[in-house]
Amino acid sequence: MPLITLTTDFGTKDHYVGAVKGAIYGELTDVKIVDLSHHITPFSITEAAYVIKNAYTNFPSGTIHIIGVDAEVSPENVPIAIQLDNQYFICCDNGIISMILSEIKPEKIVQITIQKNYDILCDTLDLFVKVACHLARGGTLEVIGKQIDQIKQIKELQPSINAEKNQIMGSVIYIDNFGNAISNISKHIFESVGKGREFEIVAKRHTFQKIYSKYNDIVDFALPLDKRQDDGKSLALFNSSKYLELSIYRSNKRTVGGASSLLGLDYRDNITVKFK
Amino acid sequence: MPLITLTTDFGTKDHYVGAVKGAIYGELTDVKIVDLSHHITPFSITEAAYVIKNAYTNFPSGTIHIIGVDAEVSPENVPIAIQLDNQYFICCDNGIISMILSEIKPEKIVQITIQKNYDILCDTLDLFVKVACHLARGGTLEVIGKQIDQIKQIKELQPSINAEKNQIMGSVIYIDNFGNAISNISKHIFESVGKGREFEIVAKRHTFQKIYSKYNDIVDFALPLDKRQDDGKSLALFNSSKYLELSIYRSNKRTVGGASSLLGLDYRDNITVKFK
Amino acid sequence: MPLITLTTDFGTKDHYVGAVKGAIYGELTDVKIVDLSHHITPFSITEAAYVIKNAYTNFPSGTIHIIGVDAEVSPENVPIAIQLDNQYFICCDNGIISMILSEIKPEKIVQITIQKNYDILCDTLDLFVKVACHLARGGTLEVIGKQIDQIKQIKELQPSINAEKNQIMGSVIYIDNFGNAISNISKHIFESVGKGREFEIVAKRHTFQKIYSKYNDIVDFALPLDKRQDDGKSLALFNSSKYLELSIYRSNKRTVGGASSLLGLDYRDNITVKFK
Repeated sequence: MPLITLTTDFGTKDHYVGAVKGAIYGELTDVKIVDLSHHITPFSITEAAYVIKNAYTNFPSGTIHIIGVDAEVSPENVPIAIQLDNQYFICCDNGIISMILSEIKPEKIVQITIQKNYDILCDTLDLFVKVACHLARGGTLEVIGKQIDQIKQIKELQPSINAEKNQIMGSVIYIDNFGNAISNISKHIFESVGKGREFEIVAKRHTFQKIYSKYNDIVDFALPLDKRQDDGKSLALFNSSKYLELSIYRSNKRTVGGASSLLGLDYRDNITVKFK
Repeated sequence: MPLITLTTDFGTKDHYVGAVKGAIYGELTDVKIVDLSHHITPFSITEAAYVIKNAYTNFPSGTIHIIGVDAEVSPENVPIAIQLDNQYFICCDNGIISMILSEIKPEKIVQITIQKNYDILCDTLDLFVKVACHLARGGTLEVIGKQIDQIKQIKELQPSINAEKNQIMGSVIYIDNFGNAISNISKHIFESVGKGREFEIVAKRHTFQKIYSKYNDIVDFALPLDKRQDDGKSLALFNSSKYLELSIYRSNKRTVGGASSLLGLDYRDNITVKFK
Repeated sequence: MPLITLTTDFGTKDHYVGAVKGAIYGELTDVKIVDLSHHITPFSITEAAYVIKNAYTNFPSGTIHIIGVDAEVSPENVPIAIQLDNQYFICCDNGIISMILSEIKPEKIVQITIQKNYDILCDTLDLFVKVACHLARGGTLEVIGKQIDQIKQIKELQPSINAEKNQIMGSVIYIDNFGNAISNISKHIFESVGKGREFEIVAKRHTFQKIYSKYNDIVDFALPLDKRQDDGKSLALFNSSKYLELSIYRSNKRTVGGASSLLGLDYRDNITVKFK
């Protein structure tokens, strides 16, 4: 049974998501639909890329991902479909694919050509659903578009490295539900630049000299419970997606605050790693 | 495989939605459940009607819609089930069906009579699930109720037309996730009253003389990117449901604001179309 | 087709829920996944227990419940799996099971032993998904863990009774989407202590002498509509889960307020029943 995932900025109150699902079930009875997120900040392809990049690798071969963010088709925002690892991504060529697949080359890219004209209002519903259902039925990319080589490139999710190769200049790319501030510095780039050297992570006026392997590594389990004061401590670790994350142990964004509020970190703020 | 949709004001934090789904799966193993919305403002049948009206036409024949908004059964709020276009709606007779099907006559209406008494607390769970599963198994409306001719009429979603037939007096019926203000003025009524005449749309102190066919029609793609200043412009268009909508191009309700905040438009505010 | 439910504090914006679903569908194609809630307050096992306790009994035999709240595995927070009524619960031994099953003894409890080490970051994804899919394929608890007799006990959801057996001292355990304040006083304990005596319910400076059987029992349907003033009245009733609830008739938490704001009731505030 084919799997179709949805990532949009539609929210979950309005009828938009229901309408898309109804249209998919109208074309295919044997399909599973999975919501990745409908709470992407409107038009934020950076957030959408982050969510999809970290979710898609968990899905089985053949999964089709519809990306309904910044998806109004125009002469400058043409619809495309991408094949990678036998998964499919349907979106507009607004740079999002270059952020999702920063280090990977897609197997095949087509510009979708089956729409009659640009005068359709809700492209995700009208066009992307058609393409997704075509692929879910085993159809090929060639039938619905023409192959292209280039897609729009955006480097926002990529950190930079200084000439001396002893600093990684990254930034906060996402604040999650727990208030954790997630950077664009991957474990891979950290290790290949650092080569095991000592380091200091700088985020505004806060510094970190250690990277934990999981949240509760900060706890000294040898101490009795009433002697521990770990809740509220800040720590750095690589998250489950292998990106450097600054976190507050067992914080709550809605009450005492999370790393984003307690450390004063916002989307796009600098995070620098200095190797010694 | 039958499809059952859910529209409620339960929210998605509490156990209510999960309990309803568990009860459905307890009766039927081969069924698909689709959430239309669980974020309807409590007791707002106007919002629920808007969401369902704009979603249901996308669903395939045979779909069953459970409406758990203002659904506590009482002597004045009797449970009903409706057949239309081979789809089914299960709700209370509180006027919501007249708002969903404003221009359409249902094929069949029954007052549900299978509940033992009115002393049941959660009618959506206890009663509507039973009716939905009966219909999903291919059961008929006659088995679970007695046919009736009349249901409660509410005209809130309907605009009025002046005697001279040169003005449509409508109002805002919904603010969507992007802050777009959606009116009750359909493209059909606009065209049948306007007959191609020039017009002015008035919403508080803002006026619009043009209706765009899609959001980015406001963009002059001939201009280079750095000469364009389209983000934040207000525009009128017919949305994907063919209702007149006032929008701000690429706005964000949570930061700069959407049409509702920037134009000062709230639910029930007047929107008037004056033809010349 | 097996059913797996998810209860987490992940929220629905981030990629975490999508990643878990992708991993489940990667292991099992024929499975239904139901979201109980992803909006549990971070780390609140009390809220999670309340949601699961009130939802699970609606699910069919064989359902598997993954609880991803306070689920980081540590030497003091070991992963367990529970069998009860032919349903399964997978979580950490942090006391949540004692709150879900306060009056019931599980048929079987195992400490999960299939993880290689404690150095895994997202235990819900990596470990609980594996266990759930094993059970969904018909596997037994014995294969993935060693049977244990004791789990951590927390009595927070349990009220106390005075020595004279004429008072129940309970507290608010949950505020729902409508602002209703739900206590830990069950209908069962109310009736077994009260034995039909008259009573007064005290919550801060508010008292209630009557328990309604449903919300609109407060309405006098004999009165004409324009003589009724029921909206906004406070009432006590046993909710659909048979817990004593204080409610405001047809209130709206986001506008006029619900019982929690109008009666000044918060999580953990006292609610006392005094029998005469």
